[in-house]
Amino acid sequence: MDSSQKSGEMAINITESKSTKGKAAAVAPATIIATTKGAENPKGGWKRGVGVFDFILRICAIGAALAATATMGTTDQTLPFFTQFLQFQASYDDLPAFTYFVIANGIASAYLVLSLPFSVVCIVRPHIVGARLLLLILDTVMIALTTSGAAGAASIVYLAHNGNPNTNWNAICQQFNDFCQRVSGAVVASFITAFIFMFLVVLSAVALRRN
Amino acid sequence: MDSSQKSGEMAINITESKSTKGKAAAVAPATIIATTKGAENPKGGWKRGVGVFDFILRICAIGAALAATATMGTTDQTLPFFTQFLQFQASYDDLPAFTYFVIANGIASAYLVLSLPFSVVCIVRPHIVGARLLLLILDTVMIALTTSGAAGAASIVYLAHNGNPNTNWNAICQQFNDFCQRVSGAVVASFITAFIFMFLVVLSAVALRRN
Repeated sequence: MDSSQKSGEMAINITESKSTKGKAAAVAPATIIATTKGAENPKGGWKRGVGVFDFILRICAIGAALAATATMGTTDQTLPFFTQFLQFQASYDDLPAFTYFVIANGIASAYLVLSLPFSVVCIVRPHIVGARLLLLILDTVMIALTTSGAAGAASIVYLAHNGNPNTNWNAICQQFNDFCQRVSGAVVASFITAFIFMFLVVLSAVALRRN
Repeated sequence: MDSSQKSGEMAINITESKSTKGKAAAVAPATIIATTKGAENPKGGWKRGVGVFDFILRICAIGAALAATATMGTTDQTLPFFTQFLQFQASYDDLPAFTYFVIANGIASAYLVLSLPFSVVCIVRPHIVGARLLLLILDTVMIALTTSGAAGAASIVYLAHNGNPNTNWNAICQQFNDFCQRVSGAVVASFITAFIFMFLVVLSAVALRRN
């Protein structure tokens, strides 16, 4: 997998500090070891800093994703008047886009909690490639998941606020004002989650690059 | 930018192929040079292969993004009957979500065309980090852009197909069947574009990782 393993099979390897896994170099003079050892610390520290930042961002994202899920999931407004046949009530499961929103943000929250141990591994061992690559791939999938949930809900919220005369869909936010307010808040929280995921992907990519 | 340029200024550099930044080690025997040079080719070739695959995927994505933009942008259906006051006509700019869809996919198409030279740079010089990191960051932004456009339009298309009795929004696809068909096709093409972008991000991350 890693070419440093290949180089480890060679008898002599002076690039130890660069390729983290290298075997000790018996032939290389002490001066070189000293120089490269000196260069190792700031690099490891830099990667560790990225890892800590990654961990903090994940905790922020958990907050945003849980807020989005909970706000949308608990929103429920019953109007104080009703006719003989039906009671006017608005809830997230009236609209498929909102149901998808709750599912998508629930999955994102669960993923974020489960990803915390991997993030800790990346802090403790900054040079591990596998864990970071796994996080990057799953974060990329989560960008798509949260963005699609948020955008789908946003376009319904927009319709609920403004209606559309061309298709004869009327605005419902005059009646369900409280419902619309809370749903809009949930959409904003979900977009914040998606934004944090984008930042996490870029952060992982920066930490992955060789140097 | 690339650290290999820095190391090029040194008189002797044998660690170049492994760790582009390595300090020169005049003491190391010549056998190491031969070994590491031998190990360089497959690695460079591997990264070049990833670069070529990246380029091909980008061309596929251009096709999908342009198809999505063109299909949505040219969709226009006028019903064969009209009343005294209004003619029944459906076009993408009747709905803000569809307008956003066209803009988002137009931007994605333009970005993809402009990104081709950078992709070529990554093929010609597989070890350049800057260009690849730039592509990764912009691809990540494009995932969010295309996914949000596609999801927003998808939730409107779903509404147009099925309507929603809770909010009293009626399905319009009975009347505008041709319109709905083409819009659905455009949404699928846009999701394909978003999927290719996700794949491109992961590919760039794999190519970025040090080894």
